[in-house]
Amino acid sequence: MRGYRNISPAEARRLCRSNEWIKPTSGMAQGYTQANLVVLPRDLAFDFLLFCQRNPKPCPVLDVTDLGSHVPKMAAPDADLRVDLPKYNVYENGVLTQEVTDIASLWDEEMVGFLLGCSFTFENALLEKGIPVRHIEEGCNVPMYKTNLNCVGAGSFKGNMVVSMRPIPARHVADAVRITSRFPSVHGAPVHIGHPDQIGIHDLAQPDFGEPVTVQKGEIPVFWACGVTPQNIAMNIKPELMITHSPGHMFITDWTDEKFEVL
Amino acid sequence: MRGYRNISPAEARRLCRSNEWIKPTSGMAQGYTQANLVVLPRDLAFDFLLFCQRNPKPCPVLDVTDLGSHVPKMAAPDADLRVDLPKYNVYENGVLTQEVTDIASLWDEEMVGFLLGCSFTFENALLEKGIPVRHIEEGCNVPMYKTNLNCVGAGSFKGNMVVSMRPIPARHVADAVRITSRFPSVHGAPVHIGHPDQIGIHDLAQPDFGEPVTVQKGEIPVFWACGVTPQNIAMNIKPELMITHSPGHMFITDWTDEKFEVL
Repeated sequence: MRGYRNISPAEARRLCRSNEWIKPTSGMAQGYTQANLVVLPRDLAFDFLLFCQRNPKPCPVLDVTDLGSHVPKMAAPDADLRVDLPKYNVYENGVLTQEVTDIASLWDEEMVGFLLGCSFTFENALLEKGIPVRHIEEGCNVPMYKTNLNCVGAGSFKGNMVVSMRPIPARHVADAVRITSRFPSVHGAPVHIGHPDQIGIHDLAQPDFGEPVTVQKGEIPVFWACGVTPQNIAMNIKPELMITHSPGHMFITDWTDEKFEVL
Repeated sequence: MRGYRNISPAEARRLCRSNEWIKPTSGMAQGYTQANLVVLPRDLAFDFLLFCQRNPKPCPVLDVTDLGSHVPKMAAPDADLRVDLPKYNVYENGVLTQEVTDIASLWDEEMVGFLLGCSFTFENALLEKGIPVRHIEEGCNVPMYKTNLNCVGAGSFKGNMVVSMRPIPARHVADAVRITSRFPSVHGAPVHIGHPDQIGIHDLAQPDFGEPVTVQKGEIPVFWACGVTPQNIAMNIKPELMITHSPGHMFITDWTDEKFEVL
């Protein structure tokens, strides 16, 4: 993995495109902003964009393609959203029917691609302040959980939030809040600290997406809104077709993480 | 006017609804957030919402109605966007064809209403710090100007930004920037300070919307992105129908201005 930390975003996307890289992207092309992907046909695009506008913590919009275009003009004008992610989830009528490494055959001129902010963006800022990020230490995907936190509905889009969890040493919790608050467009401050039960999470060892991580003695589980929320919504509202990244297998943009820090 | 400062937002909307109030709303129901209105048929709604997402300084989205609904559920669940503003502009094929006090006859089940943040929101914060707001002092509408600053296009929506101008004593300019920066969802920090020519404004005495105000010796003209921008865009792209508030004649929400201050 270490060798992949310092590659350029274009190189990272090339590795994904050629299927040389089909693993989670955390820590890849470090310092460059990673994003969640949601692809929908045009007749659902307005409701989804409105859903994002109403739920900016789980769904902070970073870029949206023009109708039919697979190019995220602002995030990475040379990229191709159909092939540049390591892995995609295809949901048909709310069921995950395929996990694939490209979606070129599914993309037509009615498609709109949405890139949403990802909490990986603030992980470097945490690490720089000496706050551990457990799933990076353990070399696995971040654990993600369905919650009982309601999103604000928009058209047919409604359902509950998905969160990511990082165990934070108690003495660092305040700093973790302070630091991540400065990144409002990549999920920002935590949505919950310390009592997973209160948000409907009953077993930290059984994440709904990603992999479990060790919570050490003296650490508090801290939860951030997660860009996998739309996948949970898709399972709920069962749109005919919705394509997303595979959790943890993100799109790597040309933007650097500093862009999203509010000073 | 003074008597109208301390009324409730519901009372302010009632006065507009009954046409007892058909003037600009600056200073009315003070402390409650005012908003720009844009109403579009559904087939333009996605492109416009995307335009707002790409241009958050002139077009910060505060609330969007469900398709066909005239109720801004989040901003004021008791309100009716068809009648609760003092004055509306109706643009047909890019031409301002009517200035009316209600739009009930034009609203059908295909309509979507957008409320955008308004710089009136940060004016109280300026006043509280002893920074003068000239158009309030002079009891007139804020001066607004078309500029040469390009917005990022989205679908058919493209064109230049409109700005509002407030003359600020030179010694207060830094504070005015600092204070308004804390209100990112109601236009935030200025887009230009001091040289109107550089953004395509050649005569401050001739605003494109609103009324001119006195710029005193020792003051600097400071320009903020303005929610009248969509009206300029409408004139440019000529959609079949687009309804907006009349500049300065805003929608008064149930939210208080503090909600939009980032601490």
